[in-house]
Amino acid sequence: MTTPAPIDLRSDTVTRPDEQMLAAMAAAEVGDDVLDHDPTMRALEERVAQLLGTASALWVPSGTMGNLIALMLHLKRGDRFLAPRGAHVLNHELGSAAWLAGGMPDPLEWDGGPGAPTAEAVRTQANLTMAYDALHTTLLCLENTHNGAGGAVLPPHEHARLAAAAKELGLKVHLDGARLWNASVALGVPPAALTVGVDSVQVCLSKGLGAPVGSVLAGEAEFIKAGRRIRKMLGGGVRQGGVLAAAGLIALDRLDALAGDHDNARVLADGLTERGWQVTAPQTNMLLAAVPDVQLTLQRLRSVGVLAVPMNGQVRFVTHRDVSKSDVEEALRRIGEAGI
Amino acid sequence: MTTPAPIDLRSDTVTRPDEQMLAAMAAAEVGDDVLDHDPTMRALEERVAQLLGTASALWVPSGTMGNLIALMLHLKRGDRFLAPRGAHVLNHELGSAAWLAGGMPDPLEWDGGPGAPTAEAVRTQANLTMAYDALHTTLLCLENTHNGAGGAVLPPHEHARLAAAAKELGLKVHLDGARLWNASVALGVPPAALTVGVDSVQVCLSKGLGAPVGSVLAGEAEFIKAGRRIRKMLGGGVRQGGVLAAAGLIALDRLDALAGDHDNARVLADGLTERGWQVTAPQTNMLLAAVPDVQLTLQRLRSVGVLAVPMNGQVRFVTHRDVSKSDVEEALRRIGEAGI
Amino acid sequence: MTTPAPIDLRSDTVTRPDEQMLAAMAAAEVGDDVLDHDPTMRALEERVAQLLGTASALWVPSGTMGNLIALMLHLKRGDRFLAPRGAHVLNHELGSAAWLAGGMPDPLEWDGGPGAPTAEAVRTQANLTMAYDALHTTLLCLENTHNGAGGAVLPPHEHARLAAAAKELGLKVHLDGARLWNASVALGVPPAALTVGVDSVQVCLSKGLGAPVGSVLAGEAEFIKAGRRIRKMLGGGVRQGGVLAAAGLIALDRLDALAGDHDNARVLADGLTERGWQVTAPQTNMLLAAVPDVQLTLQRLRSVGVLAVPMNGQVRFVTHRDVSKSDVEEALRRIGEAGI
Amino acid sequence: MTTPAPIDLRSDTVTRPDEQMLAAMAAAEVGDDVLDHDPTMRALEERVAQLLGTASALWVPSGTMGNLIALMLHLKRGDRFLAPRGAHVLNHELGSAAWLAGGMPDPLEWDGGPGAPTAEAVRTQANLTMAYDALHTTLLCLENTHNGAGGAVLPPHEHARLAAAAKELGLKVHLDGARLWNASVALGVPPAALTVGVDSVQVCLSKGLGAPVGSVLAGEAEFIKAGRRIRKMLGGGVRQGGVLAAAGLIALDRLDALAGDHDNARVLADGLTERGWQVTAPQTNMLLAAVPDVQLTLQRLRSVGVLAVPMNGQVRFVTHRDVSKSDVEEALRRIGEAGI
Repeated sequence: MTTPAPIDLRSDTVTRPDEQMLAAMAAAEVGDDVLDHDPTMRALEERVAQLLGTASALWVPSGTMGNLIALMLHLKRGDRFLAPRGAHVLNHELGSAAWLAGGMPDPLEWDGGPGAPTAEAVRTQANLTMAYDALHTTLLCLENTHNGAGGAVLPPHEHARLAAAAKELGLKVHLDGARLWNASVALGVPPAALTVGVDSVQVCLSKGLGAPVGSVLAGEAEFIKAGRRIRKMLGGGVRQGGVLAAAGLIALDRLDALAGDHDNARVLADGLTERGWQVTAPQTNMLLAAVPDVQLTLQRLRSVGVLAVPMNGQVRFVTHRDVSKSDVEEALRRIGEAGI
Repeated sequence: MTTPAPIDLRSDTVTRPDEQMLAAMAAAEVGDDVLDHDPTMRALEERVAQLLGTASALWVPSGTMGNLIALMLHLKRGDRFLAPRGAHVLNHELGSAAWLAGGMPDPLEWDGGPGAPTAEAVRTQANLTMAYDALHTTLLCLENTHNGAGGAVLPPHEHARLAAAAKELGLKVHLDGARLWNASVALGVPPAALTVGVDSVQVCLSKGLGAPVGSVLAGEAEFIKAGRRIRKMLGGGVRQGGVLAAAGLIALDRLDALAGDHDNARVLADGLTERGWQVTAPQTNMLLAAVPDVQLTLQRLRSVGVLAVPMNGQVRFVTHRDVSKSDVEEALRRIGEAGI
Repeated sequence: MTTPAPIDLRSDTVTRPDEQMLAAMAAAEVGDDVLDHDPTMRALEERVAQLLGTASALWVPSGTMGNLIALMLHLKRGDRFLAPRGAHVLNHELGSAAWLAGGMPDPLEWDGGPGAPTAEAVRTQANLTMAYDALHTTLLCLENTHNGAGGAVLPPHEHARLAAAAKELGLKVHLDGARLWNASVALGVPPAALTVGVDSVQVCLSKGLGAPVGSVLAGEAEFIKAGRRIRKMLGGGVRQGGVLAAAGLIALDRLDALAGDHDNARVLADGLTERGWQVTAPQTNMLLAAVPDVQLTLQRLRSVGVLAVPMNGQVRFVTHRDVSKSDVEEALRRIGEAGI
Repeated sequence: MTTPAPIDLRSDTVTRPDEQMLAAMAAAEVGDDVLDHDPTMRALEERVAQLLGTASALWVPSGTMGNLIALMLHLKRGDRFLAPRGAHVLNHELGSAAWLAGGMPDPLEWDGGPGAPTAEAVRTQANLTMAYDALHTTLLCLENTHNGAGGAVLPPHEHARLAAAAKELGLKVHLDGARLWNASVALGVPPAALTVGVDSVQVCLSKGLGAPVGSVLAGEAEFIKAGRRIRKMLGGGVRQGGVLAAAGLIALDRLDALAGDHDNARVLADGLTERGWQVTAPQTNMLLAAVPDVQLTLQRLRSVGVLAVPMNGQVRFVTHRDVSKSDVEEALRRIGEAGI
């Protein structure tokens, strides 16, 4: 007996470009985006800036680079920055915040809900002092949805409260919005409602939206101009990137489709709960399951063709456009049959 | 009416070299410690290595540089390191751990007592994984006594437990022993009993011991050889440093005298408690007082000639060799008289 | 009268993907190259490793990132590296060699021909000494063809002599082979003949070969494994990169076609010489022209629809697959007619 | 037969503090220079600022740290800086200019005399361009006297010409004046005549002037304020540094005595020339001798009790306050007798 075709619930990063996207890529008008400008790149950057309510935007090869450029521009040598415990910039970018951007991270606890710090903690930990030899806290990093908290959303009023606290203290605010689209759809608010008061925001085109490569960093015109220079330094300036930007433009037409992924995550959560699993209630396209032995559970799942990943001591499942409702039901059936 | 001569309880760093020390400095045999070797420097380094039970040691201009060199040698780009919340390397070295040593700090909570993390937390937060894109945790920093925790000591068995947990996980251990002498005297154990299992340790000569300038970094011979090179890079290589080392050698003869500072700290704590203050029970030469308004209290103290500093939202008092028991009693008298 | 359609001789980076390439991109089998592996990426990396005679290879978004990763792996903090004056790593990567890789560059003069240092200079400038406080020279960077020297090639025996000198001195060797394909075709030797003795080599797919985005870094298996981690840190890890790798695989089928670009460069050089210009004899697809006023000449050329760029105080023309022989002849006609 | 007591001509860094200096150190009024201010430190800093014609100044443990702080403040990530080939910041500070200050050095040839670049070269190599991806040149480093050029002086008019060229181009100017006192005395001009147009200057107290430890960085008030913070980061902030500053103040009373060292260097040069050596004409307290085998010559010299060091492929001799005219004559006698 062979393992059935796997149902891949590891991440929404596994999504593949479809026919329409590939056709757009082939038809894209391109140029040398280092030497002068690639017109499709420019169109994508303008579209994202408009969606996010910022003056300007910059394509980057990955969300990691988008976050890194923002940190490099916001932080001076030795500055302290605050971010929720478990944030992507703290745990999943290989420490570039410290050794490349030169920043001292200080994690904020989740006292405001899953993945959510409180404005009070921001005020306490910023700990501003006039001493010449004190650490300067200059930046608050937020993440919406918060990956490590199982795709939890930060609603507009909570976001605004945190951004306001940062502003009062003179801190810049960077938003890691790798899955901001999911938050926007789940909350039923436009993306720009979730970027109020931020100095920079990074969004991904290659996760739930299905574009093959690329993220966008958005902010003020001067910030983006400086970011373009840093992007070149890091080796993220590319030539005929319009082929990728064309896919990104298609991706942006599909924001509403994310609602289907959220529905599927709830179907999965309900099914697992019925089968006796302890899972988080999915706010977007993810859920975390508490199991006695994570590696063992992942192996058993894999043996019946259901793929997931470990995340902070739990099992994480992610729904996305390449997994249908019937795929989710099939996954539940296999799990039930195997008694996992 | 004029303010009386101030009683300086801000820090043991205000101690001044005395006659004996100045005479030793004047008589010191010196050499060019960059070009070849300064004999008094060498004697000091050997003496400290012996006291701490390490193979080798290196004079540095400050504890901050000693810690920095250790972090630069132990950490590779982007490595994560663990340190108790409020540690000097986290809060009082201007972020050099990140931007110079390239390390991502992750604070450990004080679940093992004031300033003391638990071995369990070390295991959890080291969070070692085989993923190629995961942060590597490679270092545990300890601090004994812990300044931010009011001079709390870490006893030998607790130290050993933490060091053992680190070793099991393959982590290096660095000990910030700026006030290790105080811990040694308070616990009644030799300093080397508090360096078991460490890869490097830094101790200061210019705090309670009263030498004017200087600290020492100790560790294996290869480590210290590499450290000598980094010290030169940072600009910490000096020429006829024997004048300072001579003071350091005198300082090392005075370890036992720290017991008097500890007695005085208890006198101060008892006196303040009698006057209705809420203070920590001093384990060494420090105490922290919880007051409603730190700045106001510091001003009122200053107005009667008693100097202290703010520390983590409290008022910190430090006793040292330039403050006698009667100075402490006089300080208490002034505080009582002014009704502070 | 309107300006005629421009003939773009600014750089071979302006080349656009053609029908065949776009079809391959659309048909590419892709995967998540961060999470696990993208099969087309793997095929491309294996093909390049084979062509260059190395054990392993790694796709990167740009030649700049390929060079940067190599420097970051070869250099330790403060190491000195040698590179020919005007090298891309010295002048065109925004100083990342220093502030990101931590290396002190020392330029080698062109005493071995245009763009070519001598083995003697490598020996002299490496200047190895046993002093503990001396700079360590640990890396020689070569560039073939050398862009700043007008596309000059470094023949196999000269390359081997330089690499051998480096090895004797214990230096690593990195080869910036952004246009190594042009050198290979011009010299009539396989690419691997030009990588003898190197520890790493970077080649571009997006210049003369016409792929839209991407370069490849090649070297030993352990080096490439470490490079994959650094790529992730810098934000160069992408998801469904197979769409780009597919274009790269097509590009590698077109090495021989570069000979046509070289022919066209000679046609251009001959024509300009006939018209009284002072130009370098093109060894590959570039030529440099000495003119009294570079900006004025570039403007006049632009006014008749001929695009070029400034390079080290001269005018640089580059031929490439999107410029035919008759385009070159038309450019010459326009230049002649306008009396430039 | 035993080797006679050595005459140490290796460096003026071997000078030892004398009785007067040691007495001043013992009598110095000191304070905690990190916590508040050490009064003797302040007096020294004010005195140096006055001598150099700057607004402010900062004591540092070494010239290397003074240069490093200046570079860290003047350079942004990836900036290019110019310095004469062989400059101390290029060759003798272990690459900290690159990996700590993040700057790309570009050496200037000595076309204006030993150790002296031309203003023309500054203009050419600054190579300012508007391209967003071009390296920015932002700093010119000068060195007076130039150690690697055998203590050559840069006269006021040459200095002014170079500083003016830098200013026209918008570059900052840092002067490594480790031996500026020697230049001042040799030229018969006040030190401030040699700092015209500089943004920062570093001078040493521990070389010819004989203080045991310490240098001073001078510049505008804001620059020095920022420098104080960086000094703390690097671990160069010390506590009761007044003991060292007191020696520095004595040292500054001895500028004129450097003339004797210069006389002795000429005596040595003349004597060596008579004995058939090829030596540079000393402009200050150094001379370089060209010999067939540097290591062999150094060994032979050592065997008769004359100490020198290698420097850029030559033998360097340095005169200083701990070597008298009769010591120099004795050294010549030994060299003559041994037929070296």
